[in-house]
Amino acid sequence: MPALNAPADAYLANCPCRSILDLLADKWSALALGALTAGPLRFGEVRTRLEGISPKVLTAVLRRLAEHGLVERTVFPEIPLRVEYALTELGRDANGPLEALRTWVEANIERFP
Amino acid sequence: MPALNAPADAYLANCPCRSILDLLADKWSALALGALTAGPLRFGEVRTRLEGISPKVLTAVLRRLAEHGLVERTVFPEIPLRVEYALTELGRDANGPLEALRTWVEANIERFP
Repeated sequence: MPALNAPADAYLANCPCRSILDLLADKWSALALGALTAGPLRFGEVRTRLEGISPKVLTAVLRRLAEHGLVERTVFPEIPLRVEYALTELGRDANGPLEALRTWVEANIERFP
Repeated sequence: MPALNAPADAYLANCPCRSILDLLADKWSALALGALTAGPLRFGEVRTRLEGISPKVLTAVLRRLAEHGLVERTVFPEIPLRVEYALTELGRDANGPLEALRTWVEANIERFP
């Protein structure tokens, strides 16, 4: 992404960080990035970890994360074909605040009405 | 919320924290809670702060945050009627990890493709 000509501010409608916040501030993005901290996983393994996600939604989440450089998709030329998903450095860093959000929710769930 | 009979785990489909993560892991929830850290605001003031949000979406976001005990809506019996939104203690606490996510995105936006 080219350098911004104004400080990044997610409150500004035209700030590029608004769409990245939209991407990351998402339950499935947070859970998918968190699952991949354990190491590269296949689609089925990610799907098992994110209980209840549909293949269609998981496909879209992984594609969006890959498009934004957070996840790397590697195809191994084997028979049958093997495809793995792994965090990039950016993905691993983005997982930090997302994991903090998830663990805050888990630790405070009983405070909610 | 009644005490859970198993440790909270957002990866489990039936864990109540899944719906709270869904609520908080949302661009507008994050921005609305962040805006209210400055103190109670009226609807129009929140809307001005969250550039680009529609009244319909903001109404739904504030209602959801209030239903979940994160925001308090106070109606002042004045003419014209005055309505203010303010963070509860739970809302102020939930803003912690959300603010960390927002500031991480703002600080790292140029690392994205």
